[in-house]
Amino acid sequence: MEEMKKIDGGVTAASGFLAAGAEAGIKYKNRKDMALVYSKVLAKAAGTFTTNVVKAAPVKWDMEIVEKYGVAKAVVLNSGIANACTGKEGEEINKAMADAVGEVLSIPGEMVLTASTGVIGYQIPLDKIKEGVKKLAPALSDTVEAGTLAAEAIMTTDTYSKEWAVQTTIGGKTVTIGGMSKGSGMIHPNMATMLSVVTTDCNISRELLNEAVKADVKDSFNMISVDRDTSTNDTFVVLANGLAENEEITEKNEDYETFCAALSAVTKNLAKIMAKDGEGATKLFETKVVGAKNKEEAIVLAKSVITSNLVKTAVFGCDANWGRILCALGYSGVAFEPEKVELFIQGDGMSLKLFENGKAADYSEEEATKILSAKEVTAFVDMHEGDGEAVAWGCDLSYDYVKINGDYRS
Amino acid sequence: MEEMKKIDGGVTAASGFLAAGAEAGIKYKNRKDMALVYSKVLAKAAGTFTTNVVKAAPVKWDMEIVEKYGVAKAVVLNSGIANACTGKEGEEINKAMADAVGEVLSIPGEMVLTASTGVIGYQIPLDKIKEGVKKLAPALSDTVEAGTLAAEAIMTTDTYSKEWAVQTTIGGKTVTIGGMSKGSGMIHPNMATMLSVVTTDCNISRELLNEAVKADVKDSFNMISVDRDTSTNDTFVVLANGLAENEEITEKNEDYETFCAALSAVTKNLAKIMAKDGEGATKLFETKVVGAKNKEEAIVLAKSVITSNLVKTAVFGCDANWGRILCALGYSGVAFEPEKVELFIQGDGMSLKLFENGKAADYSEEEATKILSAKEVTAFVDMHEGDGEAVAWGCDLSYDYVKINGDYRS
Repeated sequence: MEEMKKIDGGVTAASGFLAAGAEAGIKYKNRKDMALVYSKVLAKAAGTFTTNVVKAAPVKWDMEIVEKYGVAKAVVLNSGIANACTGKEGEEINKAMADAVGEVLSIPGEMVLTASTGVIGYQIPLDKIKEGVKKLAPALSDTVEAGTLAAEAIMTTDTYSKEWAVQTTIGGKTVTIGGMSKGSGMIHPNMATMLSVVTTDCNISRELLNEAVKADVKDSFNMISVDRDTSTNDTFVVLANGLAENEEITEKNEDYETFCAALSAVTKNLAKIMAKDGEGATKLFETKVVGAKNKEEAIVLAKSVITSNLVKTAVFGCDANWGRILCALGYSGVAFEPEKVELFIQGDGMSLKLFENGKAADYSEEEATKILSAKEVTAFVDMHEGDGEAVAWGCDLSYDYVKINGDYRS
Repeated sequence: MEEMKKIDGGVTAASGFLAAGAEAGIKYKNRKDMALVYSKVLAKAAGTFTTNVVKAAPVKWDMEIVEKYGVAKAVVLNSGIANACTGKEGEEINKAMADAVGEVLSIPGEMVLTASTGVIGYQIPLDKIKEGVKKLAPALSDTVEAGTLAAEAIMTTDTYSKEWAVQTTIGGKTVTIGGMSKGSGMIHPNMATMLSVVTTDCNISRELLNEAVKADVKDSFNMISVDRDTSTNDTFVVLANGLAENEEITEKNEDYETFCAALSAVTKNLAKIMAKDGEGATKLFETKVVGAKNKEEAIVLAKSVITSNLVKTAVFGCDANWGRILCALGYSGVAFEPEKVELFIQGDGMSLKLFENGKAADYSEEEATKILSAKEVTAFVDMHEGDGEAVAWGCDLSYDYVKINGDYRS
């Protein structure tokens, strides 16, 4: 497989992609709340969307476009109002948002994907959306800074913007993949309340792009959880415009593998920084399960640990309360022998065994607390039953989660 | 069906049952931490236990006794240490605890059920248990007060003790059912971290007692959740000693129905007061789903709402953020048409429609906040798709939940 390197930037990193962010005043004043991503040439489009039965208007819109056409030229996003549970009127407003972008960019509205996040149940003020679109279009730029402005404009309770980009070589050509995402509450696979747009100049068939995206989320966005609440608006779209001019990837060859690895580098890192910035989070909490009977069981076990409120509060309190981790493994639905399980906690380069042979290992509580005080903490679990592995990412549960979500209509 | 009335008391309400609570100093000083329940005559025993793969030593012990013999004379409980994840040594200590009770009461240890709750992974100091048993045995009494002392002795982070008792008539005889339970964190069906002992003087066959108990928990203890964490120690046992001298219930006749109704009155009320006293809770949060396609789907929908961290924080903040309720219904796994759903909130005798026809109803936020300020709040959801109904109970998610569980080794 080809080498890969991390580069600066996000959605504008790949050739032929422009972006912008702007203040449209949809719900808040003095906060960027609209973003636009644009491809100079028609791009193949793939995506995965919320599994929630209650789907926001933009989700329904995107699902139809991705399914029906599989191509797009732009993505418009707003972070003020979710446009979920808004009935027919909400669907009309969403279409009008796409059409407004289509008009200023001289493309059909059906080539504009939409994404929204924010409070559920309110109607988006269309006049403000139109004003926002008028600001966004002339500001479109292919600079790193423009990508960052877009990433900032989709933040809600996120405390920092989220971008990642990598470069690799496919068929002798430099291929770039970059993306942005927003987290931070109502985050749970499948998928998180997350919006993410990834752009690439890779030349790849619509079928394989679709397949790569669907496989990718299983190990990236579907492995994070902040609060076990799967939102109505989850949207992850990938645009591939082919401007890298590599020979089109049409089969699962080495080029495809390289593309998937690069895509995974972007999405996994976006996923991790989203988990780390979960509402009220003070640290990233990773759970790695190895030695499970198979991958599916490893996934279930890892997710069960990172979503446990009791484990999350213990991580917040830097308390090596490993009983709660064993407990969460135990109620996950996976059958196993507790006596075989080995559990370690890891952080800041240290690793400490907490549990083996069905009972506590002989460890120092002081050392455990030190490890748990790291900004990135891992629970490493070896089930000793097979070779299934999975990694899931979450965060601790703090007072601030309650504050953020207990406050009126956050 | 016969009439039923609530009476004072708990596990000592029924004829022939004695109880006691005592300070054994297992983990804390100056706190009652051991309880004993005793039946003058051999009682039929039935129970349901945690579904967690990781089962505490007392759970394994009770499961075997209930299965193998189906009878018992006593239940000994400690609220200091869970005796979970304690290996072979933990099992030996648990047996020694039962044997110690058997010795002072001159009965085989196999007639003594055990239950433990508290921190996972520590060994129970057997000498303290033995001291405790020596205090409990002479204190056994059939008074209401003795039952209350036992109920107090099994509390952990509970803020009040939990008892309920009812009286009815079966075959012309007065039959009493009374019980106690403890909640309050690591509470999730099936079942909650809960210990509950229910005693009755009803004369009922072992088979029907078992069947009644298994059916009962589906609508009571399995319908509550504080934090979606299913513990390693959940135990619900029912002792029926037959001293009411009604003709033995051996078939599903009217007497059986009366017994089940009385049992349900005790367990549902214990369940509700446990949910209301969830860790850090400021109020009871009930979700009633009607009009679902069937009961199973109604259960899934109701549980999904009461377990959502986002709904729970909104209830804490008295914010009528109904979008989160719709969202939780939507990711429950049940398919439905959002446009058909009607949602009301209810409290203090008031009821307010928040959602219909796929969007917000025309309601007053002020009124909604007033309703949500009640101590018992209900989300009433009509799916308009069938006649499936279910009620689930939980509580709000407050700063204190984080405080209680973020503190070192709670």
